[in-house]
Amino acid sequence: MSFNTFGHLFRVTTWGESHGPALGATVDGCPPGVAVSEAMLQHWLDRRRPGQNKNMTQRNEPDAVRILSGVFEGRTTGTPIQLMIENTDQRSRDYGDIADTFRPGHADITYHQKYGLRDYRGGGRSSARETAARVAAGGVARAVLEDLVPGIAVKGYMVRMGAMALDRARFDWDAIEGNDFWLPDAQAAPEWEKYLQAQRKDRNSVGAVVEVVARGVPAGLGAPVYAKLDTALAAAMMSINAVKGVEIGEGMAAAELTGTGNADEIFMGEDGPEYGSNHAGGILGGISTGQEIVVRFAVKPTSSILSPRRSIRRDGSAMEVVTKGRHDPCVGIRAVPVGEAMMACVLLDQLLLQRAQTGAAGPVGRIG
Amino acid sequence: MSFNTFGHLFRVTTWGESHGPALGATVDGCPPGVAVSEAMLQHWLDRRRPGQNKNMTQRNEPDAVRILSGVFEGRTTGTPIQLMIENTDQRSRDYGDIADTFRPGHADITYHQKYGLRDYRGGGRSSARETAARVAAGGVARAVLEDLVPGIAVKGYMVRMGAMALDRARFDWDAIEGNDFWLPDAQAAPEWEKYLQAQRKDRNSVGAVVEVVARGVPAGLGAPVYAKLDTALAAAMMSINAVKGVEIGEGMAAAELTGTGNADEIFMGEDGPEYGSNHAGGILGGISTGQEIVVRFAVKPTSSILSPRRSIRRDGSAMEVVTKGRHDPCVGIRAVPVGEAMMACVLLDQLLLQRAQTGAAGPVGRIG
Amino acid sequence: MSFNTFGHLFRVTTWGESHGPALGATVDGCPPGVAVSEAMLQHWLDRRRPGQNKNMTQRNEPDAVRILSGVFEGRTTGTPIQLMIENTDQRSRDYGDIADTFRPGHADITYHQKYGLRDYRGGGRSSARETAARVAAGGVARAVLEDLVPGIAVKGYMVRMGAMALDRARFDWDAIEGNDFWLPDAQAAPEWEKYLQAQRKDRNSVGAVVEVVARGVPAGLGAPVYAKLDTALAAAMMSINAVKGVEIGEGMAAAELTGTGNADEIFMGEDGPEYGSNHAGGILGGISTGQEIVVRFAVKPTSSILSPRRSIRRDGSAMEVVTKGRHDPCVGIRAVPVGEAMMACVLLDQLLLQRAQTGAAGPVGRIG
Amino acid sequence: MSFNTFGHLFRVTTWGESHGPALGATVDGCPPGVAVSEAMLQHWLDRRRPGQNKNMTQRNEPDAVRILSGVFEGRTTGTPIQLMIENTDQRSRDYGDIADTFRPGHADITYHQKYGLRDYRGGGRSSARETAARVAAGGVARAVLEDLVPGIAVKGYMVRMGAMALDRARFDWDAIEGNDFWLPDAQAAPEWEKYLQAQRKDRNSVGAVVEVVARGVPAGLGAPVYAKLDTALAAAMMSINAVKGVEIGEGMAAAELTGTGNADEIFMGEDGPEYGSNHAGGILGGISTGQEIVVRFAVKPTSSILSPRRSIRRDGSAMEVVTKGRHDPCVGIRAVPVGEAMMACVLLDQLLLQRAQTGAAGPVGRIG
Repeated sequence: MSFNTFGHLFRVTTWGESHGPALGATVDGCPPGVAVSEAMLQHWLDRRRPGQNKNMTQRNEPDAVRILSGVFEGRTTGTPIQLMIENTDQRSRDYGDIADTFRPGHADITYHQKYGLRDYRGGGRSSARETAARVAAGGVARAVLEDLVPGIAVKGYMVRMGAMALDRARFDWDAIEGNDFWLPDAQAAPEWEKYLQAQRKDRNSVGAVVEVVARGVPAGLGAPVYAKLDTALAAAMMSINAVKGVEIGEGMAAAELTGTGNADEIFMGEDGPEYGSNHAGGILGGISTGQEIVVRFAVKPTSSILSPRRSIRRDGSAMEVVTKGRHDPCVGIRAVPVGEAMMACVLLDQLLLQRAQTGAAGPVGRIG
Repeated sequence: MSFNTFGHLFRVTTWGESHGPALGATVDGCPPGVAVSEAMLQHWLDRRRPGQNKNMTQRNEPDAVRILSGVFEGRTTGTPIQLMIENTDQRSRDYGDIADTFRPGHADITYHQKYGLRDYRGGGRSSARETAARVAAGGVARAVLEDLVPGIAVKGYMVRMGAMALDRARFDWDAIEGNDFWLPDAQAAPEWEKYLQAQRKDRNSVGAVVEVVARGVPAGLGAPVYAKLDTALAAAMMSINAVKGVEIGEGMAAAELTGTGNADEIFMGEDGPEYGSNHAGGILGGISTGQEIVVRFAVKPTSSILSPRRSIRRDGSAMEVVTKGRHDPCVGIRAVPVGEAMMACVLLDQLLLQRAQTGAAGPVGRIG
Repeated sequence: MSFNTFGHLFRVTTWGESHGPALGATVDGCPPGVAVSEAMLQHWLDRRRPGQNKNMTQRNEPDAVRILSGVFEGRTTGTPIQLMIENTDQRSRDYGDIADTFRPGHADITYHQKYGLRDYRGGGRSSARETAARVAAGGVARAVLEDLVPGIAVKGYMVRMGAMALDRARFDWDAIEGNDFWLPDAQAAPEWEKYLQAQRKDRNSVGAVVEVVARGVPAGLGAPVYAKLDTALAAAMMSINAVKGVEIGEGMAAAELTGTGNADEIFMGEDGPEYGSNHAGGILGGISTGQEIVVRFAVKPTSSILSPRRSIRRDGSAMEVVTKGRHDPCVGIRAVPVGEAMMACVLLDQLLLQRAQTGAAGPVGRIG
Repeated sequence: MSFNTFGHLFRVTTWGESHGPALGATVDGCPPGVAVSEAMLQHWLDRRRPGQNKNMTQRNEPDAVRILSGVFEGRTTGTPIQLMIENTDQRSRDYGDIADTFRPGHADITYHQKYGLRDYRGGGRSSARETAARVAAGGVARAVLEDLVPGIAVKGYMVRMGAMALDRARFDWDAIEGNDFWLPDAQAAPEWEKYLQAQRKDRNSVGAVVEVVARGVPAGLGAPVYAKLDTALAAAMMSINAVKGVEIGEGMAAAELTGTGNADEIFMGEDGPEYGSNHAGGILGGISTGQEIVVRFAVKPTSSILSPRRSIRRDGSAMEVVTKGRHDPCVGIRAVPVGEAMMACVLLDQLLLQRAQTGAAGPVGRIG
């Protein structure tokens, strides 16, 4: 069954296909009384919008979001918020050649196998356009989160793109917004661009690793075992198109550490516990410690490439696929604001859960 | 809120603490008429049982599972199956010294912060003992899965333990059961043992990467977007104690690939589509392709070590923690049967979802 | 938290307020490959549309439904179906007098208390207009249901309206569509109309009891205990605006019966078990028997009346409310197609659940 | 699929059959730090225990509840609470004659049809014994509820038993605990007993209506539309064995009222809004008003009677059923504490939801 909802209390259901009339998100369970406007959401959508620069697809859509319900006189009412983005740049070309073809690395073949039919125009439901709805919903989550936890901040950036890797020694939080790659290293950006353009000219694409960090998250969010905050974040990030790996803190590298090396020692600071390191990514036993929450996810290289790949048609006959059209050479770039949106949704959801169970939006147990 | 349930239709809720009278799993939504017995479940529990060899903790519990409901005359009835494992080896020592102490890398501090109190005996709910309940539930899932999909096979093994890494060129499926590490390389096992014993003597521990593979999974399981099969697997694995990273197929390494390198080309075989490679880990667009499903997860090094680590007490005073007691030097070893159990539960759940939506437990759309 | 979703596998989330730009339903989990069109859904919407005759409010809206996603080339794709109905007849009058007033019998006061603010225009989320979204979603459910279970039929009708009660001896299934009251007694309809117009002239309103029957439902739908089919139906009907009571089969009157009088004796018919009576309303032990499913629900009299009622303003001051505007004298009439829609949604959801757990959309165990 | 869970945040999953080793409830999402003991739960279980007097079945089980997890040093820890009740009085008689027989009014035939097999001993999962688990879980809910809302009170009583009806003019809240029928009229109790014994001697049984009232419930619980508090209560009560009708406030009788008669006029009292009447049963627009919450449900007459009823065997052959054994002549009596338990669970769940969405366990919007 296709469940298109995520979240327990702050629940987002996305809907819509690439070439249908519209797509959007139904946001249920939003706390009342928070200022939310189309302009606020548009800010975040503009960040992920394609056609902004030559490192993205040239499909040009304004992605204008409309709020159809749940907001009255500029404030959330506590009832469902419907966010709609109309599809305006659907080129009315003939998709007949794609209808019976399965592009390697795409959902074409599995959608066909699962459902027996599919909306093949532009990838239908599997299009990266679906993530626009997430970003809009994430904008609502951010507004509420900032209302409930003043000073909370969520930021994503790229740490790898194919062969290019961020030099952590040069990490600059303030550089992130200043380049096309959300790269926390202003100086390296031109080199990344050169690399990506070379891939594009080579009719190829590359993968990426995106890191999303949340600062100012109170201790106490998450829960033991299946409802670990790690679990919620892993599910959220892995649910993004083309994502194939998720890490919290040290992530996969934790396997290479020893117990002494991995331990985040605890000290008493002025405002509560402090930690000597953050191997755990801000989550212990599934629950936030108050440190930075650190999540990374890998986005596979864009499957739509101009280089021919062997495949089959629905009738089983062999063919070669060359995916024409306007595609990102690294879809991971656009995944940065999507990762931020998912982080915001998860944190708000967990905050509401914590508030439900304990009556507080932060830690209950005192230390010191 | 602490949700201790996983699965949509085959739903498992685990309960219980390390040193309470018992722990177990409530399994709801199990198809009726399938042969399930305590002996069948015990088989899987015995695989994860501590005290089996010197590479594991010496805590010795039989971990005998009892079926309290939902099975009648040897067959599932479709009603909830209650699985209970009594805690028999709870040493009645004084835990007073732990009660007000927060061990680095443990859930002690966050449980305290979240709830204001905690069952500190043996880690309480955060104990790895919780995974015994998962393995028991996974035994039920396996029985049903094998009933519905003859020939399906789920197997886990270690691919890394600290500095030791599996040599893929020597991969031997049949060697997995023959050594203490579920290592698919019989020859390498003694070296792994030597390495681990050195860590233990050094009062240290190491992390691990476990890989779980499912063969014979029909195409069509999973769903687009948030309900991607990748998502369900990532959530399931990340929910295991101490897991901090999850990968499907290429996983994090997909970021370093190009589109041409990552494409799994498609060919027509005798029984349907075949693929030239499996970078995607058997999942495209969130839906199984019929290839092997390949998942990996990283387990951090055991936090309970005999080397002193700095921490604080509940009153904020500084102290040094040395965790005595019986602990696995690499908790990742015992995570192998747990990962298998989670894979089995997820696949069965997805099979039921596919059956609900399409009436078939496999692919609906024909190819060729 | 406001959960606006119903259903487990066929999941409907309604959204929208009376005077916002639009309202609608997000339908997730719909089986693929079923023919669904706007015209098919419009048919059911037209049945509940106000302004059709003098027994309804004179608000005149076309209630035209648009399918924004999830249907491709006339067939469902298995992805979320977004149904949108634009609000076109929102009179731009000043609602200032209502903003701070709590109308007796309305949600005004409790919405204010719960959320601290409310969209007061036309009742906002509490408007009966929300049921249009349910009817649209119900249209999808019917299409799928008829595809899966040929011959299944769902029909609603009125059995009471204030002092008027259906004479069961004159029950005529074929008369239902032929009058303004969905009354299965063509001869009595004029008398009901006379009665209702008298109430309207008296600046009053009346309540109603609606009965919804499903024929051709296979045995085996529902489940024991909490997931009784009775439970799903009770929740579905009680969730409709203004409904305050729900009955299955004998309903409340079962309390006055004896065990001998209430027993539905069982006989062997040609096609399976047959029953001597249907006190149970087609549901035994929470599971359908194959008989007619019979549900009734009571709709309270319309709270918006022209007769003055005492109330208070937000500042606590006393006042008298006279609700002007265009209101149904018996909102129960319009609840008939809504009840049908809920029945269709519940039955489809249960059918999918049965298919998930047993692989069959009907009974598994043989008799005879 | 058999979902045996109820509640959104305070989640109760019951498990177990009449003649298995044990039955119980898994309670997830319970707030931490609340005093809960086996003795507290036993108090409520003792109220529903059979064998207490001649108006109940003579099956004699202590129904001793054990807490297996989730409570530490007398307080809830926020982790799952496992409640187990062992079945001690399972008479080891031969059930062979029931195995292939379908008793009219019982779940025998539908369980067989749905699942293809059933645990026929004592009704298996459909036994009224399942309600013991609910009462135990309800005891936890009460403890938390009283901790969060001092002064809250939940009480159930009978208002009808077959031909006997409570005279509302003689209603006495303090009489409820003093007789076998939870009858709020001490004087009438002997007459009810005489009536019931006559039914028993006549080898018959009767139905009942139970009313459950909650006092001291804050305004603001519940939500619009599908999540109406009415919906949650209807689902909870309808999920009890043998219940076939549920009413809130006026219930079905609302259909016979006019708008003027049904309106609960609002006045300003010293502590907030007050109402001139309570036709709505304390719920407006799906949300609690602060008045008494009033729910009623009908329990059908016990199906197990000594009078012969016609039925069939599994092979389709005709037979007559006479249900021997120890059965309540009016199972509605024992449903009183069950209804209370369900009310407590629903109210706590709603309180947690309100706390999640608004941060308050009561009303947010000020009046006056």
